[in-house]
Amino acid sequence: MFTPKPIGFVLSPFKEKAGIPKGVGAKHPEEGVLRILPEFEAGLEDIEGFSHLYVIWVFDKAEGFSLKFAPPSEEKLHGVFATRSPRRPNPLALTVVELLRREGASLYVRGVDMVDGTPILDIKPYLSSVPVEKMRRGWVGDAEARKGSKNTGATWGAL
Amino acid sequence: MFTPKPIGFVLSPFKEKAGIPKGVGAKHPEEGVLRILPEFEAGLEDIEGFSHLYVIWVFDKAEGFSLKFAPPSEEKLHGVFATRSPRRPNPLALTVVELLRREGASLYVRGVDMVDGTPILDIKPYLSSVPVEKMRRGWVGDAEARKGSKNTGATWGAL
Repeated sequence: MFTPKPIGFVLSPFKEKAGIPKGVGAKHPEEGVLRILPEFEAGLEDIEGFSHLYVIWVFDKAEGFSLKFAPPSEEKLHGVFATRSPRRPNPLALTVVELLRREGASLYVRGVDMVDGTPILDIKPYLSSVPVEKMRRGWVGDAEARKGSKNTGATWGAL
Repeated sequence: MFTPKPIGFVLSPFKEKAGIPKGVGAKHPEEGVLRILPEFEAGLEDIEGFSHLYVIWVFDKAEGFSLKFAPPSEEKLHGVFATRSPRRPNPLALTVVELLRREGASLYVRGVDMVDGTPILDIKPYLSSVPVEKMRRGWVGDAEARKGSKNTGATWGAL
């Protein structure tokens, strides 16, 4: 195995977890900055050619884990791996952001759903999508149907 | 930070790294099994409702990292965060797989690009896609254009 180390930190308008929209249908249009540490800046070369990025980050406020989780607005418990619960065996999070521009070691992005100061472990280019018509979305699709919200499959901020 | 621990291991037809298709246009239609450890099986409940999953795994064969990387068939070096090089500051990998079926703690999937025995850190439901028309794919798109291959944005196995 390896020892995780931050490659940078998120500058986010969310100062506390409680302010971040959660649950089925949550949108994340907020802008923020992925501030990469100077020693890793060279690793960003050519990243500005990509419109979207995967950000792997740490749920550093989560304590322990639970194998069952009831997401907001859900009464039923689901397995943790069928949810985006922060209380996971490895507290890893994944967000797709839109890259607006790069300034040196700072990536200005739309779609942040992290608390200010969150440690970032990795950034990868977003290269391909599963077509909406081939996507089944389990309990999330069921919950959307109950709420009457439209399943476009394209609310990319809400993993 | 936290100490990564495997939640399971990949059963893959690839016994060695060298056999895995790499580079621009690589396809990964191979089937394999995500064998989750018995103590985490309860965390899989309801996962069978999702057609696609994110798998976060470890490049456990990678040694050290390099901030610049020339992918196969590319002459130019790119920043590591604009590539899927295994030699990253945190050796984390991300693959989107299609879930074919679940049998207890075993997830039968299509789209494996891992070596047999690779440790898995996390599994998350795939919920949304960036529409192809909104996606820019940087040097990968340029390389495809040079090769005359078609950019459908839908080769989901090839992150």
